[in-house]
Amino acid sequence: MAEDRHASGGRAQELLYDADIPTPSDAEHARTLTHRVSEGALCTFTGGEERYPYGSFSTYAMAGGTPVFLISELAEHTQNLRRDSHSSLMVVAPGEGDPLARARVTLVGNCELVATPTDVRQAFLETHPSAAYYADFKDFHFWRLLVESVRYIGGYGRMSWVTEGEWSAASPDPTAPFAEGVLAHMNDDHGDAMVLMCRAFSRASDTTGAVMTSLDRYGFEMSAATPDGPRPIRLAFSKPVETSEEVRVEMVALTRKARMT
Amino acid sequence: MAEDRHASGGRAQELLYDADIPTPSDAEHARTLTHRVSEGALCTFTGGEERYPYGSFSTYAMAGGTPVFLISELAEHTQNLRRDSHSSLMVVAPGEGDPLARARVTLVGNCELVATPTDVRQAFLETHPSAAYYADFKDFHFWRLLVESVRYIGGYGRMSWVTEGEWSAASPDPTAPFAEGVLAHMNDDHGDAMVLMCRAFSRASDTTGAVMTSLDRYGFEMSAATPDGPRPIRLAFSKPVETSEEVRVEMVALTRKARMT
Repeated sequence: MAEDRHASGGRAQELLYDADIPTPSDAEHARTLTHRVSEGALCTFTGGEERYPYGSFSTYAMAGGTPVFLISELAEHTQNLRRDSHSSLMVVAPGEGDPLARARVTLVGNCELVATPTDVRQAFLETHPSAAYYADFKDFHFWRLLVESVRYIGGYGRMSWVTEGEWSAASPDPTAPFAEGVLAHMNDDHGDAMVLMCRAFSRASDTTGAVMTSLDRYGFEMSAATPDGPRPIRLAFSKPVETSEEVRVEMVALTRKARMT
Repeated sequence: MAEDRHASGGRAQELLYDADIPTPSDAEHARTLTHRVSEGALCTFTGGEERYPYGSFSTYAMAGGTPVFLISELAEHTQNLRRDSHSSLMVVAPGEGDPLARARVTLVGNCELVATPTDVRQAFLETHPSAAYYADFKDFHFWRLLVESVRYIGGYGRMSWVTEGEWSAASPDPTAPFAEGVLAHMNDDHGDAMVLMCRAFSRASDTTGAVMTSLDRYGFEMSAATPDGPRPIRLAFSKPVETSEEVRVEMVALTRKARMT
């Protein structure tokens, strides 16, 4: 849920679609983002009398909701974690343009050494094949961050704390691996169908063009060209989808229904 | 200086050029990197009884060696800094391929509110034009990180702590803004000249091809194709350069000298 929407969210315009239709939760957005990215800022405590929060670059792989690291005993962050397990991992969505429009997530908790790394080893090497050459060096060990709370920021004005329970219960979006392909296909070949959908299923009845901007298991979003400028439109699927075939079936059904409206 | 070169540095091969020729210091590499990038992980302490190091995404602009932030009072990191000024900023060089081969730097110190932000405002907006629309919101303020120490990691096996004195005394490399163009030009049009240079000025006398891989104020680096595979070759300019014209003059002189050798 998005709390603290602040000034920069500005420009309040009436939403042209039903705000209560199924939408990914922030926990789901955060799980999807950490699953898709595989490097971030590992934050630890420096040693010494005066202690500082210390950010370092690290690769990671997700084992369920738990980030796993393969780090050298010689690295500062590892030495820091040996002294104090309090830590966080911050991950940012890749992207161009306004940096603050990018989604990011911070996983807060404690890091521990993985005692029997057999199962995490394979998951890590699948995500990071180039780690194969140092994975067996004696000074490299697997660590994991036991997540206690999660801060999700979806961009301007959309942010919330996600509890450990919400985080664990959520799962990465199954459409993420093929979403880009669906967007390209819809925008290349089905612009007309999307205009019909905007007109039929939202209050943007004067839509003259539509571009699909995102896809998730619950539905998809478009930017509709209207006399008032571009407006966001979200439409829901009849049920949550998992595969690209299920997305196709939903799109065909929505198009047919829009044509009959 | 590179300390702790560890196991992963492996494959020790004799260097084919003089290791003592002028080379950017880690302080200079770090200043160049933070000058070139403008977003990173700001690390602060969470509040509460149990405190965690908290990483968040932030844009920044450099005012000399001091990173400046424009952040909202509503943001977690700002609330954290209001309680405890200890902080760090971690910046990573953009890039593809093996993530751990990328250079990164962590600036450690204390953040303070900028009392009279007039001068930093312009520098910030030059780096981040899109900040213009929230720069005057009442809940946004300029902060700066007073750097006390710097950790620089140049990639595998190259890392060091840089003192505040070294950091302040160093400057970003003046060739960075046009280095990419020089590399493209040299690799497109002057491969033959670089082969001659490798043969004449390094111990790679059997070089059959050469690709320029980096440029800095003190010289440049190439990857020389040799019977033993690709080998790094570094050559120095006759004096530090600042402009692309000075680079051109140095290259012409080196080419001429190589032809006469």
